Amino acid sequence: MFTHRLRAAYRDVTAGNHVYYARYLDWLEIARNEAFRELGFPLIALQEQGVILPVIESAMKHLGFARYDDEVEIRTRVVELGGASFLLEYRIFRGSDLLLEATTRHAVANLTEKPVRMPPALKERLARHLVSASE
Amino acid sequence: MFTHRLRAAYRDVTAGNHVYYARYLDWLEIARNEAFRELGFPLIALQEQGVILPVIESAMKHLGFARYDDEVEIRTRVVELGGASFLLEYRIFRGSDLLLEATTRHAVANLTEKPVRMPPALKERLARHLVSASE
Amino acid sequence: MFTHRLRAAYRDVTAGNHVYYARYLDWLEIARNEAFRELGFPLIALQEQGVILPVIESAMKHLGFARYDDEVEIRTRVVELGGASFLLEYRIFRGSDLLLEATTRHAVANLTEKPVRMPPALKERLARHLVSASE
Amino acid sequence: MFTHRLRAAYRDVTAGNHVYYARYLDWLEIARNEAFRELGFPLIALQEQGVILPVIESAMKHLGFARYDDEVEIRTRVVELGGASFLLEYRIFRGSDLLLEATTRHAVANLTEKPVRMPPALKERLARHLVSASE
Repeated sequence: MFTHRLRAAYRDVTAGNHVYYARYLDWLEIARNEAFRELGFPLIALQEQGVILPVIESAMKHLGFARYDDEVEIRTRVVELGGASFLLEYRIFRGSDLLLEATTRHAVANLTEKPVRMPPALKERLARHLVSASE
Repeated sequence: MFTHRLRAAYRDVTAGNHVYYARYLDWLEIARNEAFRELGFPLIALQEQGVILPVIESAMKHLGFARYDDEVEIRTRVVELGGASFLLEYRIFRGSDLLLEATTRHAVANLTEKPVRMPPALKERLARHLVSASE
Repeated sequence: MFTHRLRAAYRDVTAGNHVYYARYLDWLEIARNEAFRELGFPLIALQEQGVILPVIESAMKHLGFARYDDEVEIRTRVVELGGASFLLEYRIFRGSDLLLEATTRHAVANLTEKPVRMPPALKERLARHLVSASE
Repeated sequence: MFTHRLRAAYRDVTAGNHVYYARYLDWLEIARNEAFRELGFPLIALQEQGVILPVIESAMKHLGFARYDDEVEIRTRVVELGGASFLLEYRIFRGSDLLLEATTRHAVANLTEKPVRMPPALKERLARHLVSASE
């Protein structure tokens, strides 16, 4: 489980002062980026080794809305791990309020976007963090 | 079935020259906005009557990537219609290439984000466009 | 003088229902992209020839605010043309209301962002459209 | 002088892996928001008192480009302070490299965007931080 905190800026909200739905995907990217850094596999280092992890599926369920200047916590975990893809699950909280449940599925590809095997060291590291989605 | 065409701008792409995943949700909003205008229920007119249609769930599956300056076609249809929510389905094509399949589920709410009944005229109009998701 | 019309989406507005200030720069990019296409030098074709036109300076003056679903017209013209850079001037109108005056200064660079000479055919074409900023 | 650090996300960069020009304005907003919080006048608290500080002019000069995952420092200061508006100046650094010089001019308005006098306590606080632009 990885956690990252950030604050909703004016750039993130729309009319009616709630965060625009697509901006939550921006936030998930930021949380994911920090999660991989914490794992010891910064995405930029993977990219320099020729490996990218493009999102091939995503899903979000909104249970509440973040507002301008809200500070939120994004909790990220690995819930599926295959040879060619993996699934991350996210929850966004404002205090104890759960605002969003989401998932992103990632392929493993080279810089020309062809599928490649996940680097074994990364797979092993992710496996140590793998949890069941129902936990 | 509603169609809307737009072009990927530099603002939409990220490193590696593919459209950033969250920007597709921006595009779906634009397509949806035009679909409701075509239906005779522009979202801004609904809003002036105190009704908004917030996204409560979304899902996307990427089958290809749009690039800078690509022109794409977004096809939108109504696939579920209930008293309190409805589901839209989208496909994004570049020429004959299907790049994205997506859905958004919408609640019907007032300006303070409380659930309200869908205006009957809107419901009737959406019902005429309702298709089975498997079609 | 080139003109491009577009509509403010929810993605463009912030709390208080006015277009977020940075989004106008997004709009200027879209207008500029279409202006160069109309000139016969689509930016993507220049890029395929190894030439990019990065923004090195920009300035904006807001005289009014665009709102959700407003349709605006962006008028673009070339007001300075040098060997190594050029200056574009923009005005954004909603009907007859002038909302924004802006400029962007562009360098001419190769794909590794080193300065290069402007392709003579492009320079000649821009020169035909050059107008004085005071006109 | 206020400083804020942030990291360039994929959402911020465009093709060619440099931060898209409009995103720097997003960053300036974030830095400004934190500067006012540090001053003791969080923008959200001002807004709750009916005062907003809309940007009426902005200017940017790019001396270098931030890349994906770069950490940058944004330095903000007050360089002009009038009864009806004030001017902020920003510099963005990556390490010791100056990437951007920018300014934003702000009006003082109520929630319906009419000009109002700056709250005296805010003006006094800003005055203590006022520096000459040439320093």
